Amino acid sequence: MRTLAQRLAELGHTRPVLAPPASKYRHHVQGGELLVIAGQIGTPGAAADGPVGAALTVEAARAQAQIAALNLLAALEAALGGDASRIRQVLRLGVFIAATPGFAEHGAVADGASELLEAVLGERGRHARAAVGVASLPRQAAVEVDALVWVTP
Amino acid sequence: MRTLAQRLAELGHTRPVLAPPASKYRHHVQGGELLVIAGQIGTPGAAADGPVGAALTVEAARAQAQIAALNLLAALEAALGGDASRIRQVLRLGVFIAATPGFAEHGAVADGASELLEAVLGERGRHARAAVGVASLPRQAAVEVDALVWVTP
Amino acid sequence: MRTLAQRLAELGHTRPVLAPPASKYRHHVQGGELLVIAGQIGTPGAAADGPVGAALTVEAARAQAQIAALNLLAALEAALGGDASRIRQVLRLGVFIAATPGFAEHGAVADGASELLEAVLGERGRHARAAVGVASLPRQAAVEVDALVWVTP
Repeated sequence: MRTLAQRLAELGHTRPVLAPPASKYRHHVQGGELLVIAGQIGTPGAAADGPVGAALTVEAARAQAQIAALNLLAALEAALGGDASRIRQVLRLGVFIAATPGFAEHGAVADGASELLEAVLGERGRHARAAVGVASLPRQAAVEVDALVWVTP
Repeated sequence: MRTLAQRLAELGHTRPVLAPPASKYRHHVQGGELLVIAGQIGTPGAAADGPVGAALTVEAARAQAQIAALNLLAALEAALGGDASRIRQVLRLGVFIAATPGFAEHGAVADGASELLEAVLGERGRHARAAVGVASLPRQAAVEVDALVWVTP
Repeated sequence: MRTLAQRLAELGHTRPVLAPPASKYRHHVQGGELLVIAGQIGTPGAAADGPVGAALTVEAARAQAQIAALNLLAALEAALGGDASRIRQVLRLGVFIAATPGFAEHGAVADGASELLEAVLGERGRHARAAVGVASLPRQAAVEVDALVWVTP
């Protein structure tokens, strides 16, 4: 299997560099067959002028979800030492969107992350998901994505 | 053991029909003994006039939590091919409530989901839970519920 | 290994008494090697005058995150019957902060919980994390923390 970085390049994406955790946590922790990837955000400041549904359109937020998912894939690759064949299945994606009280299109926003995971990982990237609209996110990001992944120990 | 649909009927509930996922995710994904059920919402538009604590009372929100839990049970039944005996334990329920900043009774709302799970599944339905008040939910729902379930592979 | 209560005392903390669940859920549920701890809050009413970023400073919210983590440790100890040697690794912490739409320092707040877990459990307490700002929390708490823990069955 190609590496995640190669697959991302084929899809026209640049694999982001994984920055050290912003504070006292780890990007990835594994217990047995369960790998947990910490919440990864889109662009810091993307919601600085207001949340999705006000200052940010659905399309802009979808792009932020994709960026968050790219960061998630960088963390996933780091967790696996580059060996993507150890991924059995992405089980769950948590998608948090900094959104207005009246916002309704969380699904369309979250698809920006979900579609990337499927494009990169195929069937193994098709996951269950909870998408919700929150008040705010770290560093005024517009989207944060975390994951549970079933892996070969 | 009776099927989930039979047990729901005994309790006076109609099992909802599971609609296809609204977007690019799966309702249920299993890895080993861990089954993940995607976030299921109550009635679309229930929070269209405002969140719980403003336009919606605790009682109305409890009813929405129960509807979300009925949808969760429909997804659970689909995941198990109707064989509820494969459920060992519902481990965790995530309960997201579209609520005002000042709202305090998330527990009473979430009980609408928790009580249904226990009524249907007995001891195996008694779970750990995180209930929080969010800014908004997909399709202007008032409540969204997701789950981690320990199952026989 | 010392008990969690002994280790907390060494660090100058008093182990809180675990109150019964406020409503229809369990504080801890285990399935195989996966232990789920329910959402534990900081001080009830801490956000009664407004959310973090408005009525509450980052420092005050950090202290609330630490209190929530102390309650989480009390639930963890109860789950393990006091035998902390059964903890292999804290896998994931969910940190929910009642915060304003413009708030940006969720990481600094969540560190109040993360640092305590590492101080008490060492390397086994270093976890992946998702920290988000929500509209409101049960009992007008300012912070709620839940966990997934990898344990010896």
